[in-house]
Amino acid sequence: MPRIVMKFGGTSVATVERIRNVGAHVKREIDAGNEVAVVVSAMAGATNQLVAWTKEAGAIHDAREYDAIVASGEQVTSGLLAIVLQGMGVPSRSFQGWQIPLRTDETHSSARIESIEGGSLTAIMTEGQVPVIAGFQGVAPDGRIATLGRGGSDTSAVAVAAAIGADRCDIYTDVDGVYTTDPRIVPKAQRMERIAFEEMLEMASLGAKVLQVRSVEMAMVHKVRLFVRSSFDAPDAPQVGPNGLPPGTLICDEDEIVEKQVVTGIAYSKDEAQITLRRVKDKPGVAAAVFGPLAEAAINVDMIVQTVSDDGSTTDITFTLPSGDLQKASQILEARKGGLDFEALSSTDDVCKVSVVGIGMRSHAGVAAKAFEALAGKGVNIRAITTSEIKISVLIDAAYAELAVRTLHSLYGLDKA
Amino acid sequence: MPRIVMKFGGTSVATVERIRNVGAHVKREIDAGNEVAVVVSAMAGATNQLVAWTKEAGAIHDAREYDAIVASGEQVTSGLLAIVLQGMGVPSRSFQGWQIPLRTDETHSSARIESIEGGSLTAIMTEGQVPVIAGFQGVAPDGRIATLGRGGSDTSAVAVAAAIGADRCDIYTDVDGVYTTDPRIVPKAQRMERIAFEEMLEMASLGAKVLQVRSVEMAMVHKVRLFVRSSFDAPDAPQVGPNGLPPGTLICDEDEIVEKQVVTGIAYSKDEAQITLRRVKDKPGVAAAVFGPLAEAAINVDMIVQTVSDDGSTTDITFTLPSGDLQKASQILEARKGGLDFEALSSTDDVCKVSVVGIGMRSHAGVAAKAFEALAGKGVNIRAITTSEIKISVLIDAAYAELAVRTLHSLYGLDKA
Repeated sequence: MPRIVMKFGGTSVATVERIRNVGAHVKREIDAGNEVAVVVSAMAGATNQLVAWTKEAGAIHDAREYDAIVASGEQVTSGLLAIVLQGMGVPSRSFQGWQIPLRTDETHSSARIESIEGGSLTAIMTEGQVPVIAGFQGVAPDGRIATLGRGGSDTSAVAVAAAIGADRCDIYTDVDGVYTTDPRIVPKAQRMERIAFEEMLEMASLGAKVLQVRSVEMAMVHKVRLFVRSSFDAPDAPQVGPNGLPPGTLICDEDEIVEKQVVTGIAYSKDEAQITLRRVKDKPGVAAAVFGPLAEAAINVDMIVQTVSDDGSTTDITFTLPSGDLQKASQILEARKGGLDFEALSSTDDVCKVSVVGIGMRSHAGVAAKAFEALAGKGVNIRAITTSEIKISVLIDAAYAELAVRTLHSLYGLDKA
Repeated sequence: MPRIVMKFGGTSVATVERIRNVGAHVKREIDAGNEVAVVVSAMAGATNQLVAWTKEAGAIHDAREYDAIVASGEQVTSGLLAIVLQGMGVPSRSFQGWQIPLRTDETHSSARIESIEGGSLTAIMTEGQVPVIAGFQGVAPDGRIATLGRGGSDTSAVAVAAAIGADRCDIYTDVDGVYTTDPRIVPKAQRMERIAFEEMLEMASLGAKVLQVRSVEMAMVHKVRLFVRSSFDAPDAPQVGPNGLPPGTLICDEDEIVEKQVVTGIAYSKDEAQITLRRVKDKPGVAAAVFGPLAEAAINVDMIVQTVSDDGSTTDITFTLPSGDLQKASQILEARKGGLDFEALSSTDDVCKVSVVGIGMRSHAGVAAKAFEALAGKGVNIRAITTSEIKISVLIDAAYAELAVRTLHSLYGLDKA
């Protein structure tokens, strides 16, 4: 019997009325002959309220207590959905993380999943019951509740799918799939039928907020097929589209994608900042001296460009980082100005990173050159460039973000007919 | 080192601001050299919201899911208080019922405590940490969360106190002790310094809503001294009064009460109804035939009066029950009218039960006669009477409730000087 995991986010379970709608989606899959496990987030707003209370209780708060408090949100939703399903004649029970158990490491409030016992879930699924699992949480080695960090319910769902050997993990969210770019910027953006894990990883980490990066990584490792769809679709709508699936986007192994496009999508992120260190004395180990302290402060540096002066004695180092870390990074570097021996630090968060993503790039030359040419043609100045096997990213002035995204989206033939 | 349990109810932890006040009370006891364990209820209003959601999710809801949902309220408070205490420099951690573990029977949503492992609590208390225990909950034999029913946090506190061998269990509530009667009816009511377990049991079950009956029963069995006090007292107020304790009421073994009063207090309950079956054919087993079906429907019958007709062929049976059960009980009896062979059923919920309580009654005759005389003198008609070793209860018309309570309160010398 096909086995699927269905995951519903906070907006999909924001009220008991919406939880009833979720129940109808679950019942449809059961009626279609599937074995189903469900993973739920907290009701929208609940987590924010709980987090606000922990902050009010103490500016510096014990992550273990934070976890106990915040995990209660998913606990409530799991029980409510189980009751709703029972009322629809679908046998069901809730599972908290510690009841499965879903074991995590000891990093409270941003724990990583170490293992899941799938047995307790499959045992009741084969009896025809639907386990409703509180997402975002597990039990740490100290026997206390641990949460997986924001968005952790996606990761819970993928981990559950891997543990029970699910054929598919359906992520119900407030959008109906993954688009070739942000439809708010490019109305001609198209929903993708399929996208490879690697591509989605680039799209997710570059600002397409549909799925958490960690959940996509885990899905790729365990080969869990993800299907992103809208929880606001009518539960009784026809369930067969071009993929043999209703409207949505299937995130799967490359092998499942027959016709690989050169470029699949255009991602962008405005949450970027740029720091330039001017005229750094060029000596061995200078890069380590700059980036070591930032790494220690858990600041993720992304694009790095280094240019050497004409006489080779100094170098300009430019790099990007999340804009939220700009102030901290600047302070760390200014404090080391003497040791690093640079002349000036300049920074801006008025930048945007735009990326062209596609597994087909591997076998197609000239993709990057075409992008640079098109952007130059529109007068967009490129501050920095990074590339990987399946992606090209450019850093540009924030003012040009929409123009650049639209230009590249057209350029690679992604506009809807 | 003296060891105490401190229990705080919903109004005492209704906001983070009030939880901070609770923290100050706890810190005071720690600073005074006590080992402390704390038991907390859910923030006032939280439980009602959670219960409302379960009802909205399904009229008939699985008690196990109800428990998972509702127990989350105490989970939140326990974490918040632990954070607050840490912020005050008092090492602390939260405990959920399943973490202690506090084991219950399988009666989900009104479970009884079967056992508590005190070891996990005393281990951290001897290290100088304060365990903050989520009240009202434990773990059932099926490994799922079970709640103890409304007011269960008092019971949790007493059970914890028994398990860790506490010298005292302080119940912080929104009143500053147990009064000789309801001060809203008799402004001259006095706070009692001490009251025996047996007396408190009669006061509690008769409508003095300070403590749950079950918690008092458990305290009596395990000889846990209870001290009822107000959480709204300033945490830094002087802590020594006539009992060697601040303002409040100590509920303790009779042996601790040197000067036993004949009458300790006057309790009343308006939540009563009366049913009379007229001219029931009097034959052996008639009482069983009437009360058996009511017991099966979990209806608690209290006072019973039976009067036989002049010729001995029929009997009138009058009894009281909680007014909430009146309709159900009437239906059950009317359905059996033929078998029971009675002429008519009449009922009213316009009645009140007033009780005179005191362990000193055991050694004093004439207490009841004095009460009947005083009530007759005020024109109060008595519908039924029940007595026990330490209590006299009379059922009267509800309109006379306040008059009867005031009359009896004065009669036995309980009015404040």
